[in-house]
Amino acid sequence: MALDTPLDPVQLTADLIRCPSVTPDEAGALALLERVLTKAGFVCVRVDRNGTPNLFARWGKKAAARSLGFNGHTDVVPVGDLAAWTHDPFGGEIADGLLWGRGATDMKSGVAAFVAAACDYATQTQPKDDAIIITITGDEEGDATDGTIALLDWMAQNGEAMSDCLVGEPTCPNTMGEMMKIGRRGSLTAYFTARGIQGHVAYPHQTHNPVPVLARLMADLSAHTLDQGTAHFDPSNLEVTTFDTGNPATNVVPALCQATVNIRFNDAHSGASLSEWLRAKAARMAKETGIEIEVRFSISGESFLTPPGAFVNLVARSVETVTGLRPELSTTGGTSDARFVKNHCPVVEFGLVGKTMHKVDEQVPVSQIEDLKRVYSRLIGDYFA
Amino acid sequence: MALDTPLDPVQLTADLIRCPSVTPDEAGALALLERVLTKAGFVCVRVDRNGTPNLFARWGKKAAARSLGFNGHTDVVPVGDLAAWTHDPFGGEIADGLLWGRGATDMKSGVAAFVAAACDYATQTQPKDDAIIITITGDEEGDATDGTIALLDWMAQNGEAMSDCLVGEPTCPNTMGEMMKIGRRGSLTAYFTARGIQGHVAYPHQTHNPVPVLARLMADLSAHTLDQGTAHFDPSNLEVTTFDTGNPATNVVPALCQATVNIRFNDAHSGASLSEWLRAKAARMAKETGIEIEVRFSISGESFLTPPGAFVNLVARSVETVTGLRPELSTTGGTSDARFVKNHCPVVEFGLVGKTMHKVDEQVPVSQIEDLKRVYSRLIGDYFA
Repeated sequence: MALDTPLDPVQLTADLIRCPSVTPDEAGALALLERVLTKAGFVCVRVDRNGTPNLFARWGKKAAARSLGFNGHTDVVPVGDLAAWTHDPFGGEIADGLLWGRGATDMKSGVAAFVAAACDYATQTQPKDDAIIITITGDEEGDATDGTIALLDWMAQNGEAMSDCLVGEPTCPNTMGEMMKIGRRGSLTAYFTARGIQGHVAYPHQTHNPVPVLARLMADLSAHTLDQGTAHFDPSNLEVTTFDTGNPATNVVPALCQATVNIRFNDAHSGASLSEWLRAKAARMAKETGIEIEVRFSISGESFLTPPGAFVNLVARSVETVTGLRPELSTTGGTSDARFVKNHCPVVEFGLVGKTMHKVDEQVPVSQIEDLKRVYSRLIGDYFA
Repeated sequence: MALDTPLDPVQLTADLIRCPSVTPDEAGALALLERVLTKAGFVCVRVDRNGTPNLFARWGKKAAARSLGFNGHTDVVPVGDLAAWTHDPFGGEIADGLLWGRGATDMKSGVAAFVAAACDYATQTQPKDDAIIITITGDEEGDATDGTIALLDWMAQNGEAMSDCLVGEPTCPNTMGEMMKIGRRGSLTAYFTARGIQGHVAYPHQTHNPVPVLARLMADLSAHTLDQGTAHFDPSNLEVTTFDTGNPATNVVPALCQATVNIRFNDAHSGASLSEWLRAKAARMAKETGIEIEVRFSISGESFLTPPGAFVNLVARSVETVTGLRPELSTTGGTSDARFVKNHCPVVEFGLVGKTMHKVDEQVPVSQIEDLKRVYSRLIGDYFA
């Protein structure tokens, strides 16, 4: 265990990788961080909910005037094809300047870097009306229903608050420092079921085929331009991800077919406005054709934006100082727990290069972890300056 | 075994039902018919091919001036839910004026009726330049690749020929005598596979979704009017019977999707002309979208028509004389072995009411079997008159 200061973020990442914390197993990862943070003067509370392990840690004053938050997760996705790994996915091996293992980029390195930066600062500084709040969940890769949400709920109930928050997820596509995230698109999934009348193809007047109707609806939806993009967002995008009849016979008109649509949407829309639009399209098609069309929705996140301003600039300057690159202010990519944090305070994301995340032979250059700690240290210093 | 003349077609049907001749098992059915026909003076040859049992029988001269054919099958579809039957499906029971069992309508009754009619005629008549040729297969409900086709191949090789042929399949929707078939639509099945580029929905520029493209193609094909019907045929009809991605994830654009189209077509088209049309539509969509679309075809039968004329009129008059109904000259319904026979000679179909075919508790009124024998007897008498 790496408890000397300055804390070595590479060593801490390796120690975390050695905890096989595949969602939902904590596997010692949060316990390790709790020891490290406690030793550096943080007040730590385990905020587990419904079996999901979560860790809250604060240095400095409760309800401080300025409270900088860091959010991350220690759970990792499964290793996949173990035989295809050239290094032990839970070995934390360093070879050729690379640290190997599941979670090396997503995101044990990010967690280790901000924990190391925060511990260094905490052990060298006397808190004034300041606080650093660290929230780490053991369920970001899973349902995430009792992870960061549980931490934020607990904080609200206990008078804990962050002024601003940084999520340490990997944000750089290829080169360390090139991109940070100041928002994310929302994500909506719509599940369509079309019902007609089954029967033999030779007697079409006794059948009512739902397949061409649902096919037309899917083609129509796909052809629709949702928007042209907004100030900080790419255009919203709709994909038909599934279409199935499950019909084993080619001479039978099926009674039912199903399709799924996923929309990644920008701030020109909301989950509600898109649900309304999809429902209306389905209803119009149903009325026109006499085929019953049912649709249900799952909204896994609304779009959000932390507009360029003081906090965004501070993060960007810290990145530029360390890496020499002015990071692009992006809103691309999938979702992250920032979609929950944004309901509590301004939130941005910056982390290292995510290329190998979720893949076999996940790995990261040791120097990137060191640089990432430097960025976070710089941010903390400037934030409280 | 019912070998007295006049042959009782009800008794013969019951005897055939007691042979559990589910495709491809002969189960004694063809052996029984061979004994009955031989006793009545028919020359019988078993024309089995690749394990499929078939029976050829001729009364009268080989290569006669006038040769009337009857075609049918003794194989039956499986019983399905045995517990749901109220009578033994292979018992041949008669109750309340109904004969119960698998094959009671499709088509052991038809076979029994024309065999009984032919045997009566053969035992009472001295053949001149005439012949009655009976071809019965044990595989009509299966692939049918070595059934009636094998019989016709064997006949061609052995100088056996029919001037006209009647297939004894059930042809009446509700009332005995109301409909005969003078042709059938063709059937073509097209299998489409569309290939794009798989990837995460959050990064649409790295994907190319084949689903909306195939959906549009299927919607286009379904919306197309193939024709308005022809003199003796209903309009051709296209159905999309399957559409599948088999994609377990709603956040992944699938690499591939597949759809199946079945067309039942009239004499305005051929399997080749429709294949050409579908191939061109797929190629145009592929060119427009950059999605690769593969299509392969299976043509299970071309459309055919035996135009109203001497033979059709003879059959219609026989039906009308016995039942009092002038049968509608129809080309509706599925396919039958008439699609093979039509390559050899004019062919029509007439049989009893098919309502319970392939169902649990398949049954037929005893009086319909008796009427059907009368129709066939009348036809034979008039044909050689």
